[in-house]
Amino acid sequence: MRIVSADTGGAVLDGAYEPIGLIATAAVLIEKPFKTATMSIVKYADPFNYDLSGREAIKDEVFLAIKLAKKVKPDVIHLDSSLGGIELRKLDDPTIDALRISDRGKAIWHELSKDLQPLAKRFWEDTGIEILAIGKDSVAVRIAEIYAGIYSAKWAIEYAREEGSIRIGLPRYMKVEIHESRIYGESLDPREGGLYGEIESNNEGIGWELYPNPVARTFMVLEVWRE
Amino acid sequence: MRIVSADTGGAVLDGAYEPIGLIATAAVLIEKPFKTATMSIVKYADPFNYDLSGREAIKDEVFLAIKLAKKVKPDVIHLDSSLGGIELRKLDDPTIDALRISDRGKAIWHELSKDLQPLAKRFWEDTGIEILAIGKDSVAVRIAEIYAGIYSAKWAIEYAREEGSIRIGLPRYMKVEIHESRIYGESLDPREGGLYGEIESNNEGIGWELYPNPVARTFMVLEVWRE
Amino acid sequence: MRIVSADTGGAVLDGAYEPIGLIATAAVLIEKPFKTATMSIVKYADPFNYDLSGREAIKDEVFLAIKLAKKVKPDVIHLDSSLGGIELRKLDDPTIDALRISDRGKAIWHELSKDLQPLAKRFWEDTGIEILAIGKDSVAVRIAEIYAGIYSAKWAIEYAREEGSIRIGLPRYMKVEIHESRIYGESLDPREGGLYGEIESNNEGIGWELYPNPVARTFMVLEVWRE
Ligand SMILES: [Mg+2]
Ligand SMILES: [Mg+2]
Ligand SMILES: [Mg+2]
Repeated sequence: MRIVSADTGGAVLDGAYEPIGLIATAAVLIEKPFKTATMSIVKYADPFNYDLSGREAIKDEVFLAIKLAKKVKPDVIHLDSSLGGIELRKLDDPTIDALRISDRGKAIWHELSKDLQPLAKRFWEDTGIEILAIGKDSVAVRIAEIYAGIYSAKWAIEYAREEGSIRIGLPRYMKVEIHESRIYGESLDPREGGLYGEIESNNEGIGWELYPNPVARTFMVLEVWRE
Repeated sequence: MRIVSADTGGAVLDGAYEPIGLIATAAVLIEKPFKTATMSIVKYADPFNYDLSGREAIKDEVFLAIKLAKKVKPDVIHLDSSLGGIELRKLDDPTIDALRISDRGKAIWHELSKDLQPLAKRFWEDTGIEILAIGKDSVAVRIAEIYAGIYSAKWAIEYAREEGSIRIGLPRYMKVEIHESRIYGESLDPREGGLYGEIESNNEGIGWELYPNPVARTFMVLEVWRE
Repeated sequence: MRIVSADTGGAVLDGAYEPIGLIATAAVLIEKPFKTATMSIVKYADPFNYDLSGREAIKDEVFLAIKLAKKVKPDVIHLDSSLGGIELRKLDDPTIDALRISDRGKAIWHELSKDLQPLAKRFWEDTGIEILAIGKDSVAVRIAEIYAGIYSAKWAIEYAREEGSIRIGLPRYMKVEIHESRIYGESLDPREGGLYGEIESNNEGIGWELYPNPVARTFMVLEVWRE
């Protein structure tokens, strides 16, 4: 089974360690033994001008996952939306109303599905690849989340080179290590069975520190600065 | 405190990593320091012809726990059903209706209690041993779950010897290691304080691989094959 | 950001490993990198005569946190009550009724706020320091919980010196190590990013054992005895 997934994460933090805006959407290709990605791509957002309602993220994720899927032809696409694994192309208004989710979640999906449902339908007709709203049960979604954190670290390094320093929040219970020519990241939850990721990055002349976010237990803060 | 518990787990998986049927019910005796079993027995199901509704499992667990308890005379039996620790012998219809569980859970227990309540009552009258529906709070239940996973690995090895290979899903966040003459298993959740188990098994000529189930985060897949 | 927090934990256990009463309220000062306390104080309760409803603990925590805060002048106080981070000085009756918590929680807070709301208001007027009901999201609260466990171990050692031995339950997924002149404690959840604590204590002539609480999964039992 070859799975493409996408997720958005990493946030610029304010002085109170609260998120200002998200940094990176990563799409990944996952293959057996499902512990890391065999390919990854990224799309950066502007964290200083970001809609935190979650609508922007899901759209970015669908577009980026389809972009990668066109290239690598996976068996299926996993989306970070926990709707019980339903196919995105089937998410019409009556189906959304029948979901066991909050009223707020339904309102968001009524709006999102206007664009995304026809897109998913067309993609499935062209390729036979389903886009499933499987969410937190998917290891592929979690690996995409870890890569979103790794790419956010890369973004932070580039930002610090220009601006001097920055403080970002990583996705839930993961850490990163910044080496001279690569960034390594891994899950801090051993129950997940050893999920990790790595990308190349020129990190010379950069200092960094990783520590728990005091107001968001199980989330880590990464500070990077130009040395 | 000496506790007997039983649990069912390990599942044959289909090509999409979804469970077809459960493999093993294990009953265990747990004694201080409560990290592993001092005795264990197993009853195998037919995973290719299995009722996944959960009724079959609970009955098997009560019968197997009583079988082991008759031999080792524990202080108490822990059942993997999270009903707040209520005594099984007291689970009559009005008591079930008063439980804070789902309507589906109540329907299942109204049916199950027909057989199990009188059985538990008789067992208690004979031995003084209570059967408690304590569920997820019990370390004994978790150790029984780990042994169900270890015995499922043993079943898979025997299956692979005959049929060539098989792929099973282990119970939640646990791993196994297949050594030449034994199978070792342990929890992947360090919060549980180091729970593990081990059984003897002739594993010569068997190859194996363990990796995350891509569609069930925190669950591991075990593949075994005849070499 | 310098945070003061307080929490109550550690319990004397009966023969069935059930809590009789809580042992210690710890207040801590937390500073970057937020992995341990830079200062801690304790107030011991009488676990053999304890109101387990939770009211006693919260009052003790507010008083002890304010006591430490007067000394170290933090930016903020974090309280172990998960009310979304609301300021304690704003918790009047209509605000409590509007909270998304259980009716039982509302009744408790209607009673608690009679004393605590004016106290928090006065403290804020005097010092500008807010007391936030942030609860489980706060790393400072978790570190206070770990110190409550460490101080409970110290209490148990002193109790064992007088009475011979005792068995206590530690706060959720943490362990302690009793060394000759200090007690070290740490979280068993690696997702928290390495939270720990340490206090001085004369532990000569004391034996100890740590193991999982069989009826409270993810909680550890500490036994200590005079050798
Ligand atoms: Mg997401
Ligand atoms: Mg079970
Ligand atoms: Mg507390």
